[in-house]
Amino acid sequence: MSSDRYLARRTKLIQAIRKADLSALLVTNPKNVSYLTGFSGEDSHLLIGPGRTHFFSDSRFETQLQDECPGLTVEIRTSRTLMHDFLAEWLPKFGLSNLGIESSSMVVSLHNQLTESLKPLPLVPKAGLVEELRLIKDSDEVTELRRAVHQAERGFELMRSLILPDQTERQASHELEHGMRRFGATRAAFEPIIAVGDRAALPHYRAGMRTFRESGFALIDWGALSARGYHSDLTRILVTSKLPTKLAHVYGVVLKAQLAGIAAIRPGAKCQDVDAAARKVIEQAGFGKHFGHGLGHGIGLDIHEGPKLSPISTDVLKPGMTVTVEPGIYLPGMGGVRIEDDVLVTRDGCEVLTSLPKDVPLTVC
Amino acid sequence: MSSDRYLARRTKLIQAIRKADLSALLVTNPKNVSYLTGFSGEDSHLLIGPGRTHFFSDSRFETQLQDECPGLTVEIRTSRTLMHDFLAEWLPKFGLSNLGIESSSMVVSLHNQLTESLKPLPLVPKAGLVEELRLIKDSDEVTELRRAVHQAERGFELMRSLILPDQTERQASHELEHGMRRFGATRAAFEPIIAVGDRAALPHYRAGMRTFRESGFALIDWGALSARGYHSDLTRILVTSKLPTKLAHVYGVVLKAQLAGIAAIRPGAKCQDVDAAARKVIEQAGFGKHFGHGLGHGIGLDIHEGPKLSPISTDVLKPGMTVTVEPGIYLPGMGGVRIEDDVLVTRDGCEVLTSLPKDVPLTVC
Repeated sequence: MSSDRYLARRTKLIQAIRKADLSALLVTNPKNVSYLTGFSGEDSHLLIGPGRTHFFSDSRFETQLQDECPGLTVEIRTSRTLMHDFLAEWLPKFGLSNLGIESSSMVVSLHNQLTESLKPLPLVPKAGLVEELRLIKDSDEVTELRRAVHQAERGFELMRSLILPDQTERQASHELEHGMRRFGATRAAFEPIIAVGDRAALPHYRAGMRTFRESGFALIDWGALSARGYHSDLTRILVTSKLPTKLAHVYGVVLKAQLAGIAAIRPGAKCQDVDAAARKVIEQAGFGKHFGHGLGHGIGLDIHEGPKLSPISTDVLKPGMTVTVEPGIYLPGMGGVRIEDDVLVTRDGCEVLTSLPKDVPLTVC
Repeated sequence: MSSDRYLARRTKLIQAIRKADLSALLVTNPKNVSYLTGFSGEDSHLLIGPGRTHFFSDSRFETQLQDECPGLTVEIRTSRTLMHDFLAEWLPKFGLSNLGIESSSMVVSLHNQLTESLKPLPLVPKAGLVEELRLIKDSDEVTELRRAVHQAERGFELMRSLILPDQTERQASHELEHGMRRFGATRAAFEPIIAVGDRAALPHYRAGMRTFRESGFALIDWGALSARGYHSDLTRILVTSKLPTKLAHVYGVVLKAQLAGIAAIRPGAKCQDVDAAARKVIEQAGFGKHFGHGLGHGIGLDIHEGPKLSPISTDVLKPGMTVTVEPGIYLPGMGGVRIEDDVLVTRDGCEVLTSLPKDVPLTVC
C-alpha cells in the first residue's frame, strides 16, 4: 500500500479527533497502529492529532520503520528506557490540553502511570475512533482480503487432495495451515476447526484426534492471514464417504438460508434484517433452535470486527464493509452444517469474495 | 496435570492475596487463568480469595470446562449478556471489602465499567501476584517444558534434513513449524528467525526471501509451543557451505561465553552475575559492544517471563526457575552468532534441557 493511503486514513482520523474535542489520540492498539502507518512490528505507539503525528518505537524497529513508514516522524527509545517513561518524557512537549487514549486496548497499569506522570493533563478514555474508520475497507484492503481468501481456498484444495482415512483432524489442520502458507499466507487466520462426524455439532471444537475414517463427513472452518495482516474466514462441509440423510436435508436448508442472507446484503440494509432473512429460512424449516449464533461478523485486520450480523445488531451496511455470512444448524450427537463465505458490500449490492463450490457438499478428490 | 496441582497453585495464591490485604483477586490474564485452573479457552475470568473460587465463562466453553476443570464452581453467561454486566451482577454477591485487579492485563474500559457498576467497592490495581508464583516451575511444568524442547529439536532436525540451496528462509520457517507440529507442538512458540548470511546481524529479522544458496550459513532461533501452552526457545548456527573465518572465531567466543553463563547458574546466584559471567568472556575477546542484549529470560506459559538475566536485573535464581542462556555477537554487514539453550535451575546447580549439539556449528545433513 502507498504511503498516501496511510496519510488519507490519518487525515480522516484527525477529523474524528477534532470532532471528539481531543487535542490528540494516543493509538496503542497494534492493529490500529498498523492501519494508520503500515508498521508491522510491535510495542509501538502513535500520537496523532491536528498538526501532529509522532511515532514512538524502539531500536529493534529502526530499520524496519525506515522501510515501512517513510516520512513518518519517529522517536526511538533504547532498551534502557521503558515505554511509559519515554512517553512521559515526550508527551509534555506537545502542549496538549487533553489526551484521548484507546480504552479498549490500554491496560490499567500504563494508564495509571501516564495519568500520574502527565499530571495535570486529563486522559480521556475513548473506544472505537480508529475501529470506526476500519469498518469501511479501501481498495488496497479489499485486494488484501481477496488475497487472504485465495490463500485459504488454495490451501484447502491442497489439504483436500492429501486426506487419507487414517489421518486425524489435527494432522489435516496442520496440512491446511502448511498449504495456506505455500500460497503466501503468513499463517492460519485462527486455529482451524476440523470436526469429524458428531463433533461438527460442537460450536467451539477445534481439531482433535478423530480420524476421517470414524465418520463419513467433517465440518471445516478455516481462514488465512495475508502478509499484510488481513483475515479470511470460510466454512465448508467435506464428505469423505457419506453424509447422513438427515444432514443432507439440513445442508439444503442451510444453503438456502445462506443464499437468502447474501441476497439481503446491500448498502443501507440493517444488519439485523440480513440476519433475519437467513434465520427465517431455518426457522421455517423447523430448525430455529439449532441455529444459536449470529449470521456473521466483519473481517479485516481482526478476525472478528464490526459490523455484526445478528438479531440484536444495530449496525447498518455501507459500501466497503466486508462480512462473513455463516448460518448453521447443529444437531447434538449427529453433527452440524455451516456454510460460510466472505462478502463485500458494493455500491449497489454485494460481491461474494469466496469461490469454492457449495451447491452440494464438497467431496474428497 | 492433576486437579490437585491447580488446587495447590490456588492455595498459594490465596496466601498472597491475604498478605496483600485483598478480599479477592479478579484474574483476567488468560495465561494466569490457565495456570490456576487448567482451562485452555478464552474470555473467562477467575475470582479467587480466601473462602471463594468462582469461574466466569460463557456457553461456548461449558463442555470444555467440565473436562478441563472438574470440581470448579463455574458461572456461565449466555451470548446475550456481556462479560462486564455478568461480573457486575455476580461480584456484589460475595460481600467483598475490596477487589484486586490485574492491572497489567485489564484494559481501561473494563476497569471503568466495573468501577462504576461495583460502586462503592474499591478496585485495587495489582500486578504480578500470579506471575510471582509462575517463576518457580513445578514438576508438571518442567515435564511440559521438556516436551516443548523435544518438539523444537525434532522439528529442527526434520527441517534440517529438508534444506535445499534454493529454499528461502520463509520456506524453511514453514517446514520448521510443520515439523514441530508433527512431533506434537501446537505451533511455533514464536515466528522463527531464519537469517541467512549478514541478516544474522539484524536483531529483529524473521524469515524472508533469501535463499540458503546466497550465503554459507544461517542463524536459526526457534521454539515450540507444547499442547499445554509451554514455550521452548533455542538458537543454533547452521552451516550450509562455509562459515567465514572471522565468524568461526566468533563462534568459539560465544560458545565459551554461553558455557560460562551456564556454569554460573545455581540457586542463590544473582541474575546480573550470571549475565556478567558470560559478558566478561565476550568483552575480554574484544566484542563487548557487539553483544547488545541481555543474556536470557525466563520461559514458561509466556515466551518472555521472569527472571531476567541482564546487567540491570535484580532477580535472584531459585530452584525450579527456567531460563534461556543466549549470548550473541553481531557484526553488521557480516553476520552474527548466537547460541541459545534452555536451562532449569536445580537444587544444587542447573540442568540444560536442550540437547542439540553446539560444540561446533551444525551442518546440513
